[in-house]
Amino acid sequence: MLTYTKKYTVPYYETDANGNMKLPSIFNIVLQLSGEQSHSLGISDDWLKETYNYAWVVVEYDVTINRLPRFSEVITIETFAKSYNKFFCYRDFVFFAENGDALLTVNSTFVLIDISSRKVAHVEDDIVAPYQSDKISKIIRGHKYTALSDTPLEKSYHVRFNDIDQNGHVNNSKYFDWMTDVLGYDFLSTHVPSKIQLKYSKEVLYGTTVTSRVDLVGVQSFHEIVSEGKHAQSEMTWKEK
Amino acid sequence: MLTYTKKYTVPYYETDANGNMKLPSIFNIVLQLSGEQSHSLGISDDWLKETYNYAWVVVEYDVTINRLPRFSEVITIETFAKSYNKFFCYRDFVFFAENGDALLTVNSTFVLIDISSRKVAHVEDDIVAPYQSDKISKIIRGHKYTALSDTPLEKSYHVRFNDIDQNGHVNNSKYFDWMTDVLGYDFLSTHVPSKIQLKYSKEVLYGTTVTSRVDLVGVQSFHEIVSEGKHAQSEMTWKEK
Repeated sequence: MLTYTKKYTVPYYETDANGNMKLPSIFNIVLQLSGEQSHSLGISDDWLKETYNYAWVVVEYDVTINRLPRFSEVITIETFAKSYNKFFCYRDFVFFAENGDALLTVNSTFVLIDISSRKVAHVEDDIVAPYQSDKISKIIRGHKYTALSDTPLEKSYHVRFNDIDQNGHVNNSKYFDWMTDVLGYDFLSTHVPSKIQLKYSKEVLYGTTVTSRVDLVGVQSFHEIVSEGKHAQSEMTWKEK
Repeated sequence: MLTYTKKYTVPYYETDANGNMKLPSIFNIVLQLSGEQSHSLGISDDWLKETYNYAWVVVEYDVTINRLPRFSEVITIETFAKSYNKFFCYRDFVFFAENGDALLTVNSTFVLIDISSRKVAHVEDDIVAPYQSDKISKIIRGHKYTALSDTPLEKSYHVRFNDIDQNGHVNNSKYFDWMTDVLGYDFLSTHVPSKIQLKYSKEVLYGTTVTSRVDLVGVQSFHEIVSEGKHAQSEMTWKEK
């Protein structure tokens, strides 16, 4: 498979009170890079829309964090479309420090949806051929999420105009903002995530107020984003700073 | 005066539902660039803190927008420290399209504050000498803001962990999010700003709930961000998309 590489200097506004790169910023750049690779191979999101009326949608993330990138750090990000089957495409992203250490790894699962019907489409070989991705028959089983308690910590968030992207729904990265914010300043200023699993189930539209619910059990947090129904679930493992 | 220049490709996540660069993103990159110029001249924010225990704080913006940068557009941004007097430093930013057209201009006013006392400090010549900035005696008069009506449109916003920067207060760019969001989807999806004046009066700390208040009179909007007292005021002129 082909690897797409980008050097990136972490700007001030992508870092939090701790000087660490914000989670939403990490997932913003992840999707930006997969789009840049597609564009560089002549199979951009515009091409996909014009040719098939399809769009890429990320449905799951599995993230392992050794250390978060820091303000003004020069990092290198690599991405490659690892493999695919009839329904799913698996893409990895690896963030490296200047000395070559792997800072974090994002395993992602994408599907193709038909833009008109919003239904999942079969992955055609010629759409993924340029990435030199391996075709596999196996469907990789997603993480099983633990149900939340009856009394989770919860907080409501109103969707703002600037949360909406050109697809008319809330940008994927926003969920990380809602999911972490509910944990509060004392926790967030003393802990960093080391493992994140996240599953998107249903898009969030403008005008919605979502509730971010969390059970914090030791250093593990179990998350749900709900409004009418479940929009996303996540499990995170944290460590002290 | 010395000009610092940067090329920038507008990424997906810095654009809104209209495909235009978001206002908070414009002001994020503006401050990032002034920091980069300082760093390149050997008078970085860290140097300023270590040598003088001072920090740069922006107190006013005056922005003229011909057209907002668009998703994936390659823009060039120039900045220069135009002039200074005893208390204020005036810095301009100009955003150019690839064909050389000026897209927008940001005139900014900075002060130096003493980090311990939080009080405004005198501008020492040797702090600004490396920018080759002109010393002027005149204090440029700031914009006079119209008082709001007794019945403005208003909406409350809770400060989130990710709104806080390494200085422990809400990042400057966040105010634009609160100020525009209160105008609502119908207005924001059909209008773009052409002129913005903004004045920061008091920082916003974590845990605060601010109220964004606005009077919309034709294509002019008059804004206040308040909690206990006034944190910022703004006037914007809009045009139809």
